[in-house]
Amino acid sequence: MNQITTIAFDADDTLWVNEPLFTQTRIRLEKIVAPYIPIESLEADLYKFENQNLSLFGYGIKGFMLSMIETALEMTNFKLSGRDVQQIIDLGKDMLQHPVEVLPGITETLEALKGRYELMIITKGDLFDQETKIARSGLAHYFTRVEIVSEKNPTTYQELINRNGLDINRFLMIGNSLKSDVLPVCKIGGKAIHIPFHDTWVHERVESHEADGVEYLELGDVRDLIPMMNH
Amino acid sequence: MNQITTIAFDADDTLWVNEPLFTQTRIRLEKIVAPYIPIESLEADLYKFENQNLSLFGYGIKGFMLSMIETALEMTNFKLSGRDVQQIIDLGKDMLQHPVEVLPGITETLEALKGRYELMIITKGDLFDQETKIARSGLAHYFTRVEIVSEKNPTTYQELINRNGLDINRFLMIGNSLKSDVLPVCKIGGKAIHIPFHDTWVHERVESHEADGVEYLELGDVRDLIPMMNH
Repeated sequence: MNQITTIAFDADDTLWVNEPLFTQTRIRLEKIVAPYIPIESLEADLYKFENQNLSLFGYGIKGFMLSMIETALEMTNFKLSGRDVQQIIDLGKDMLQHPVEVLPGITETLEALKGRYELMIITKGDLFDQETKIARSGLAHYFTRVEIVSEKNPTTYQELINRNGLDINRFLMIGNSLKSDVLPVCKIGGKAIHIPFHDTWVHERVESHEADGVEYLELGDVRDLIPMMNH
Repeated sequence: MNQITTIAFDADDTLWVNEPLFTQTRIRLEKIVAPYIPIESLEADLYKFENQNLSLFGYGIKGFMLSMIETALEMTNFKLSGRDVQQIIDLGKDMLQHPVEVLPGITETLEALKGRYELMIITKGDLFDQETKIARSGLAHYFTRVEIVSEKNPTTYQELINRNGLDINRFLMIGNSLKSDVLPVCKIGGKAIHIPFHDTWVHERVESHEADGVEYLELGDVRDLIPMMNH
């Protein structure tokens, strides 16, 4: 890691808690739909709509809100009441206003790395959501560059490396998703460290064979970065 | 205009048609709500929800879809049926898939300017929507830089000028909105040209006194740029 000059962090479930908020909201959605029908299939049905809508909506809470409404409409055979539709919209508005909970060890680690490395955020999702979360997290001042992209793949990483005039040989990416944070960076010749998060969205899971042939480090705690990068 | 090296274009209603799509969708929404109640106040009610939701949703079609649903729910005292909620979601999905209609004269103008100026897009709104519209417009190859921002004000313009290493004295912004494209650029010392579009969202209208003291040019046709920039 001696030659690294720029360290980029994923945001959702790397810097702060994200996926549990979606999980909690799904549980609240079940309570809305439960009076109409059995809810066993809700998680699968919701994932089906999220996946179908991804090419139209992209990632983010507003698309999730619309997918929740469509799921609840279809599951109830369109008998869902207007009041219940409003309740679902209100669930999403709660998500959008939810306090940003910075993960343990993040502030300590950023404090130790700042000044010695250029720190960067690379996150995918809704531009507006992500900007407000960065602002609300209180972490913005650690980062000299913020890139919000609509998808994380080798092409988008290569473009942002070029756009920012960075050297891929001196670039390290840190994130909780093998699929979005680790594999695409390794594929274009960068270094990446995987820090798993306990609650990873099914869409982000990667079969281990997809990681074959790609070398990356895995850390259990972000604070392990401090001695490692302390050269 | 002799010292200009970078020309940036706004996208919606500058490069391609946008606002009429919202207007057409409002008319289709009126047809959904009409069986329940008088619809005279729909436009005002919808604008009220859009405005209330702006700080949570930002700009873009997904937020507009959610505001349409909330408006229709409130106007019908939550009697709106599940089928009608789905119809509103489908209106929004139609918008997201609507062909991108490039405005008259744009291709001719970009063709004349390319190579002699660095061309750029600076647009606000939903990251995912805007990226797909740029791709679908067939205009992407004219532009070496694309900036999608969540708000256009003097601060965001200054940040993107710095981030891209541009010289504000050599920068020209072209757009249909005085509020978003012209005034904030002039305020940080750049040049701007206003090309009005016939259908401007009420949120984008600026009282004339706000334009006081700021100098900018107004053109009736984007093609007028060609002789002007042909030095």
